[in-house]
Amino acid sequence: MAQSRIAIIGTGLIGTSIGLGLMSRKDRGYEVVGVDRDRSNSRQAKKMGALDREAGSLEEAAEGTGLVIIAIPVMAARQILQNIVPYLPPGAIITDVCSTKSDIMRWAAEFLPETIHFVGGHPMAGKETSGPANASADLFRGATWAVTPSPRADEQAVAVVLGLVESLGATPLYIDPAEHDQYAAAVSHVPLLASVALFRMIRDSQGWEDASLLSGPGFRDLTRLASGDPMMSRDIMTTNREAVLHWLGRLQNELNTIRAAFDAGNDALLDLFSSTQLDRDAFITNPPQRRVPEGVAPPSAQDSIGRLFVGGLYDRLKEAQTRPAAKSDDAGLKRKLGIRDEEP
Amino acid sequence: MAQSRIAIIGTGLIGTSIGLGLMSRKDRGYEVVGVDRDRSNSRQAKKMGALDREAGSLEEAAEGTGLVIIAIPVMAARQILQNIVPYLPPGAIITDVCSTKSDIMRWAAEFLPETIHFVGGHPMAGKETSGPANASADLFRGATWAVTPSPRADEQAVAVVLGLVESLGATPLYIDPAEHDQYAAAVSHVPLLASVALFRMIRDSQGWEDASLLSGPGFRDLTRLASGDPMMSRDIMTTNREAVLHWLGRLQNELNTIRAAFDAGNDALLDLFSSTQLDRDAFITNPPQRRVPEGVAPPSAQDSIGRLFVGGLYDRLKEAQTRPAAKSDDAGLKRKLGIRDEEP
Repeated sequence: MAQSRIAIIGTGLIGTSIGLGLMSRKDRGYEVVGVDRDRSNSRQAKKMGALDREAGSLEEAAEGTGLVIIAIPVMAARQILQNIVPYLPPGAIITDVCSTKSDIMRWAAEFLPETIHFVGGHPMAGKETSGPANASADLFRGATWAVTPSPRADEQAVAVVLGLVESLGATPLYIDPAEHDQYAAAVSHVPLLASVALFRMIRDSQGWEDASLLSGPGFRDLTRLASGDPMMSRDIMTTNREAVLHWLGRLQNELNTIRAAFDAGNDALLDLFSSTQLDRDAFITNPPQRRVPEGVAPPSAQDSIGRLFVGGLYDRLKEAQTRPAAKSDDAGLKRKLGIRDEEP
Repeated sequence: MAQSRIAIIGTGLIGTSIGLGLMSRKDRGYEVVGVDRDRSNSRQAKKMGALDREAGSLEEAAEGTGLVIIAIPVMAARQILQNIVPYLPPGAIITDVCSTKSDIMRWAAEFLPETIHFVGGHPMAGKETSGPANASADLFRGATWAVTPSPRADEQAVAVVLGLVESLGATPLYIDPAEHDQYAAAVSHVPLLASVALFRMIRDSQGWEDASLLSGPGFRDLTRLASGDPMMSRDIMTTNREAVLHWLGRLQNELNTIRAAFDAGNDALLDLFSSTQLDRDAFITNPPQRRVPEGVAPPSAQDSIGRLFVGGLYDRLKEAQTRPAAKSDDAGLKRKLGIRDEEP
């Protein structure tokens, strides 16, 4: 059955890790196909057991596919969304794993017909090392996975993506795309810039060689994000420029506050370090609880990936082709999830 | 034999980890004694097997002890150096594990008589969690351990500290105290401030709760140093103020450079991330080689801790009491190690 196919566009670290997770399910009723602009990536993903099959083209990957997972830097995803439309069967679901969500949600609304259901996603996991070689089925275990359904995506499409997330061991977090980008700028994008700044600060200094001899695990950890995929980092900053610059300004203010504590004396410094230790320890010991949207029980992996793909998806696709878009149901779901409609 | 005793002053994370390492040696010919201002710390260290015996006072720990390891925040070490002198036998060796070296080297020169040999130390290892409960004999395995012998310390005293370092699995790095503090400011102290700034930036914002829900391993790693012992952090900043403020200024400049790259456009951002990734990957794959001082073979752990303490130390102590300070030999060693004499 052709529709029981999942296509992964981009088999780098994240795409290949998803493939490994999907392939490890017992009794799976779907085929996993992967395609990568860099053929050696998809070849390696196939070799690692992350794919049933490499596709030679976007067309081959998309044709008759029920679920497409876009796992490439966000700016390249724009073109993929435009190019993939002619090959997808009606009712197909697209999700992504890109680091920013506002732009891709806008592109999805712009380029995709109503018959294609877009549910954005962003796993808050990763490694500084890119490429399929570093992939692992466990990469997402215990991670938060932001989910941003498009207002046009139907309930079943959302359920499939939730099932995907859960089957990979992650916890879905419904969030508005603009909110996601604001907060991701704070907890992820500006920390990446801080990592780059710390590394460059020492690397570009005359004392680099001597200083690096003294460096320990603290320096390695703090600069780890500076080893991330440059294209991905560039795309993050370009598509989330305003929020990133806002939080970068706040970081610069904090550094000035710390400088002022040096001037204020020993007690001010001790207060700063003491209150920060308390707050951070509280955050680590008792992390804030995740929102569970009222009345919406996320389906188990069995319910979604499992049930939908083993036969169910075929029905769904047939139905999608015949029924009108279920506007009212969708609006209800959106309300429950607290998702705002996109601006016209 | 009383002199075959090692005393650990301060049984927190580092002191207890050293104790665990020392106690794990087979055929050890020494007793390990620990003392902590907070009695529950030394009690726990003893329970964990990091000590043969708790001492009830500095006097009890020091009396007749051949090697004293000071493992407390640097500003508290000043008082210890002053107080310990009357109890130590001539020829005794003091080392420390404090994060800054200039001040403690100056205090050692000021407070210690010629018969006490001070060899500064700083393991470039640690954890953000403090206290004996998080200690581990493996904490120093593979780490660099800065060694800053005082100009008055004799060759044998240096050898004992090198042996201590090696027996804990670390690699000694001879370095001038002022140089150490400059570079440690860059690779360790300013990264700690960056960690604090990143955490405070988000913690103090209105969006903290929502943002923290989205936080992943990147945020946790980048803010990890903000959970460090506040007293230790304060002491670091106070005793290394000038160097830290210098490097903090450089970090602030780097952040402005990054801001400029946003203005310069996509290519500038991509260049920044690409060159940083290349440089950091090179640093991780091929870290700069450690200096091995010419003509000085660091003794094996057997040669130093082992040989010296099992009988040898007794002879050394007797000899130290009768012979005049071996000025010329010391100067030769200093030259070989590239260690400058302290200013008068």
